[in-house]
Amino acid sequence: MDRPASELLDEREIRNVVLRYCRGIDRMDRELVRSCYHDDAVDVHGPFRGSVDDFLDWAWRQMSRHDRTFHFLGNMLIELRGDRAHVETYAIAHHFGEADDPARNLTLGFRYIDRFERRDVAGWRIAQRVLVSDWCETRDPALRWPIPDAYLLGTRGADDPLHESREWLEG
Amino acid sequence: MDRPASELLDEREIRNVVLRYCRGIDRMDRELVRSCYHDDAVDVHGPFRGSVDDFLDWAWRQMSRHDRTFHFLGNMLIELRGDRAHVETYAIAHHFGEADDPARNLTLGFRYIDRFERRDVAGWRIAQRVLVSDWCETRDPALRWPIPDAYLLGTRGADDPLHESREWLEG
Amino acid sequence: MDRPASELLDEREIRNVVLRYCRGIDRMDRELVRSCYHDDAVDVHGPFRGSVDDFLDWAWRQMSRHDRTFHFLGNMLIELRGDRAHVETYAIAHHFGEADDPARNLTLGFRYIDRFERRDVAGWRIAQRVLVSDWCETRDPALRWPIPDAYLLGTRGADDPLHESREWLEG
Repeated sequence: MDRPASELLDEREIRNVVLRYCRGIDRMDRELVRSCYHDDAVDVHGPFRGSVDDFLDWAWRQMSRHDRTFHFLGNMLIELRGDRAHVETYAIAHHFGEADDPARNLTLGFRYIDRFERRDVAGWRIAQRVLVSDWCETRDPALRWPIPDAYLLGTRGADDPLHESREWLEG
Repeated sequence: MDRPASELLDEREIRNVVLRYCRGIDRMDRELVRSCYHDDAVDVHGPFRGSVDDFLDWAWRQMSRHDRTFHFLGNMLIELRGDRAHVETYAIAHHFGEADDPARNLTLGFRYIDRFERRDVAGWRIAQRVLVSDWCETRDPALRWPIPDAYLLGTRGADDPLHESREWLEG
Repeated sequence: MDRPASELLDEREIRNVVLRYCRGIDRMDRELVRSCYHDDAVDVHGPFRGSVDDFLDWAWRQMSRHDRTFHFLGNMLIELRGDRAHVETYAIAHHFGEADDPARNLTLGFRYIDRFERRDVAGWRIAQRVLVSDWCETRDPALRWPIPDAYLLGTRGADDPLHESREWLEG
């Protein structure tokens, strides 16, 4: 394969890491989130700055304050140089918790500023992630609208419909 | 072409199906939506569960309650295994209707959980779609802001500016 | 490289132009925005209709009314025909300014309808862009939520953390 075409494969691998991170966070699959980072990766995430394993401890405590998160990704600009890539990803994270607590119902507009490295065995993973915040709002509790019972609901656990559906892939 | 590169083409085809579905819904182009599914496809969409043709009847009735929809897609994670693919797509659907009716002005956060199959002639299409709802809010009518007359407006019909612009492509 | 694979490279180049446009607007990097267009490009943007250079003058005046913008992209459907491509991109632009002025705090849902051309030297760039507006709302000032001091903030200038991080790429 020539170089430009192999770059497309690199970008696919990088893009999928960023996507799997969000799946892992929203479904609270800690192993999946962990697999997005190199072992010595650093995450700079507001008041937290440290190793990926400490970050996960911190993030899981943060997430326990919410009933649900929805990390919605937009623009992802990947710049590739050999075994390094710089990736900026726009995101809007919707947080939900007890309706009468505004701090548990925040909408955050931010960007993930990621340094990816390709290494032997591990492949493309995050070596450093910096979260850059652009805006924040709380949600208006008066606008909450109940999802009718007939609708299938997402969950954070093993009963999210995603998991059963993925088993078909291997079948 | 070797396998990894041909997988990129598979993913492009799959991605474009999901994108054309949204174009078809928002512009109310029923044929375009229909072409995203295999003939025997099943859609599980809240209270509706059934064949694609019945789904379209149901969906078109639902959409008649709104003046406009805007199906905005984020994270799309494609997992490919030969002639099968599992695709999770984050979406936020903005619905607009009479300002004083909250049920016609909903914002829905959800995921399309799709099973794609590649078949002869038809190529990659949806074999099964399940809608998983994550959150729902009504819109605050006090926040509506009129779009100034000088702006080109989107429509659901043949006069949406998209259609005229696409003719240039064939010219 | 065969034709389908080279189309993937075309689409990557096109996608990156649309992404760089948003980076350029949100970081107020006029050169970067300019580089997304051919020299004779036309932009139809609400009350503005004219050349790319006049558009930039107009857009920069518009943007001076805001403290921050966040151009969030979703669905991008690229249709390629040789040296031409038609590209529809869903976008939600979040504008922020003085909290008590609703006109400076608008959220716009719209689509970029782009005609791309590939030309010698310049490569793939926008030859014509039309903005199609779908919906607009002002933001509720009561929902503003302060970003804690510990968080790294985005800016429009050279001190946005993006810039320092990108230097690593060349290192």
